[in-house]
Amino acid sequence: MSSSNQIHSAVAKLAPEYIKAIAPYQGGKPISELAREMGLQVEVIVKLASNENPLGISPKADYAIQEAVLDIARYPDGNSFALRDAVSKKFSIAPNQLVFGNGSNDILELAARAFLTAGCETIYSQHAFAVYPLVTQATGATGVVVPAENYGHDLTAMLAAITPKTRMIFVANPNNPTGTLLGKDELLAFLRQVPKTVLVMLDEAYDEYLSAANKSEAIAWLSEFDNLIISRTFSKAYGLAGLRVGFGLCHADIADLMNRVRQPFNVNSIAQAAAVASLADDDFVERSYALNQAGMAQLTQGFNKLGLEYIPSFANFVSFAVRNATQVNQKLLQNGVIVRPIANYEMPDYLRVSIGLFSENARFLEVLEQILKSNE
Amino acid sequence: MSSSNQIHSAVAKLAPEYIKAIAPYQGGKPISELAREMGLQVEVIVKLASNENPLGISPKADYAIQEAVLDIARYPDGNSFALRDAVSKKFSIAPNQLVFGNGSNDILELAARAFLTAGCETIYSQHAFAVYPLVTQATGATGVVVPAENYGHDLTAMLAAITPKTRMIFVANPNNPTGTLLGKDELLAFLRQVPKTVLVMLDEAYDEYLSAANKSEAIAWLSEFDNLIISRTFSKAYGLAGLRVGFGLCHADIADLMNRVRQPFNVNSIAQAAAVASLADDDFVERSYALNQAGMAQLTQGFNKLGLEYIPSFANFVSFAVRNATQVNQKLLQNGVIVRPIANYEMPDYLRVSIGLFSENARFLEVLEQILKSNE
Repeated sequence: MSSSNQIHSAVAKLAPEYIKAIAPYQGGKPISELAREMGLQVEVIVKLASNENPLGISPKADYAIQEAVLDIARYPDGNSFALRDAVSKKFSIAPNQLVFGNGSNDILELAARAFLTAGCETIYSQHAFAVYPLVTQATGATGVVVPAENYGHDLTAMLAAITPKTRMIFVANPNNPTGTLLGKDELLAFLRQVPKTVLVMLDEAYDEYLSAANKSEAIAWLSEFDNLIISRTFSKAYGLAGLRVGFGLCHADIADLMNRVRQPFNVNSIAQAAAVASLADDDFVERSYALNQAGMAQLTQGFNKLGLEYIPSFANFVSFAVRNATQVNQKLLQNGVIVRPIANYEMPDYLRVSIGLFSENARFLEVLEQILKSNE
Repeated sequence: MSSSNQIHSAVAKLAPEYIKAIAPYQGGKPISELAREMGLQVEVIVKLASNENPLGISPKADYAIQEAVLDIARYPDGNSFALRDAVSKKFSIAPNQLVFGNGSNDILELAARAFLTAGCETIYSQHAFAVYPLVTQATGATGVVVPAENYGHDLTAMLAAITPKTRMIFVANPNNPTGTLLGKDELLAFLRQVPKTVLVMLDEAYDEYLSAANKSEAIAWLSEFDNLIISRTFSKAYGLAGLRVGFGLCHADIADLMNRVRQPFNVNSIAQAAAVASLADDDFVERSYALNQAGMAQLTQGFNKLGLEYIPSFANFVSFAVRNATQVNQKLLQNGVIVRPIANYEMPDYLRVSIGLFSENARFLEVLEQILKSNE
């Protein structure tokens, strides 16, 4: 990407300064890209970089996809009727309190576009998800970063950062890339102190990976908070990352406004069908949860054995500290293991690894151990 | 949808006035929706409302979809590497001059978001595609509508409408919903008169339905015009409407800026794979073109027989005038035939019908004839 001073086209120079200042998101490296770069066979590559579900998708979703493909030359249902009905029933929420997105990234963006303008401020935590600043900047609004506390959100400091210009606060729970979790009482107390004229975007992309005791109760809080938006995704525990589908739950007025800036056919037909089927397969989500618990134990035991510090995580990934993280990451890549460097999250000494299959986790730990030994 | 004076939530009231003023897009009625509303069997319904390809998709795309589904738990390639490579080769354009979108609707929106702010103006024709005003309004910019000439773009009047505030001009060629086509010389002369600081978004969604002699040469013009953006889609002749994939071709600086406001994973994996495969199947596009030519003849002959006026169309749909259009549309729906009322395009006396299979066109004409006879 060229920086703004390298723009030659006369009309491109006229783009707003806040657009020219955006540094695009860096995603996890695709397997195909590493294969090209390193001359590796796709089959030997282990990707633990994007918090994907190593179990794949529900067999019910697979079946629904096959059916949806038969009708793929038709436009999607722009109102996501069947999916809206399924989510509405599953989460006991009115259909008009739902907004469907091209992944939950779309939900974050729709809220930003419906409510933010130049002159507004948003608040998010240090080390929080990279898309919060991106959707803020794209509207010309100003993002205010609040220093983290033990790698998690400092809600007291976030409250203190509210000004008359604040229009939206982003809270990720659990947080990515640190995996930290806010207590329910703490979060509820926070919501009660946020002014009613400030939106709270509560990003619960990883909720399905929480234990029963820790699982969010925020949907029930919607009746108390007109300014609360909860975002959920099918990309993580449901395994539909490649299809792009997520949703927002909020007051009907907020949903209405978000729908006004939504592209008419933002959620493709296959994603809608697969999401409906996935919601009907609790067993798959339970198996995904159980595998994640086991894999988290496997990885953290491995880190302990290697004497590496890590941030205890409530999600399907864990960030660990390692000397010369950039170099270690490069060596992991050379050995066909993709994890996520998180220097762009102000964590240059950490790498984030997603929980994979037992064999993938084992391969990662084995290669990591070799790299660390050769560095001694 | 509630209008702005029905908004109760305190925070929703704070959304910008231009957001609250947006009236969402009305798409073609899905078959499933009509089936629910009218108590009809899905099988008896003929949908000719969304300019979809009645042949479905290329068998090569079908195969590619099956392969892509195997890896659907992975995030898509955010850079659309394989698709970029395929489009770049097919259209002889540099990879960095391409932007991929969740349908070409996304391309229109990315350009608007990268370049428009409150205070800017955009220009589009009366009776032009409904998404142009939508993407304009969502940025707070002001849309200027130029009266059409014989249902097509009046380029002279559009040039005359340019002011110092104009940042973007939308030109649809062929135009939807009228099917009119601008001559290449006329369009080139227009581009040469547009100031270099005004973007021209040339929407060529229906280009594949043009005869060899009429097909666009605009991609070759990109070397002359840094301010030109061409948008293309896989939703029409390629039949991938349900998957959502389109692309923009423009100066690398423009593409760079559009990519900065693009959601990292805006194009799903299946869409990318299917689009690559579709580009390799010219035969399918040729068959789609031939079927469309035959269907257009079938429908226009039918209109002539019924004594109905229609607008000669260069695309895969045709708009025809009929007395009591709203009532006729309602009767078509009752008989399981979905076409598109276009009163929202300031054409209350017209209905737009997409070219379908021979049997679908015949069914539409048969039902239409019955309705007209019963009205006599």
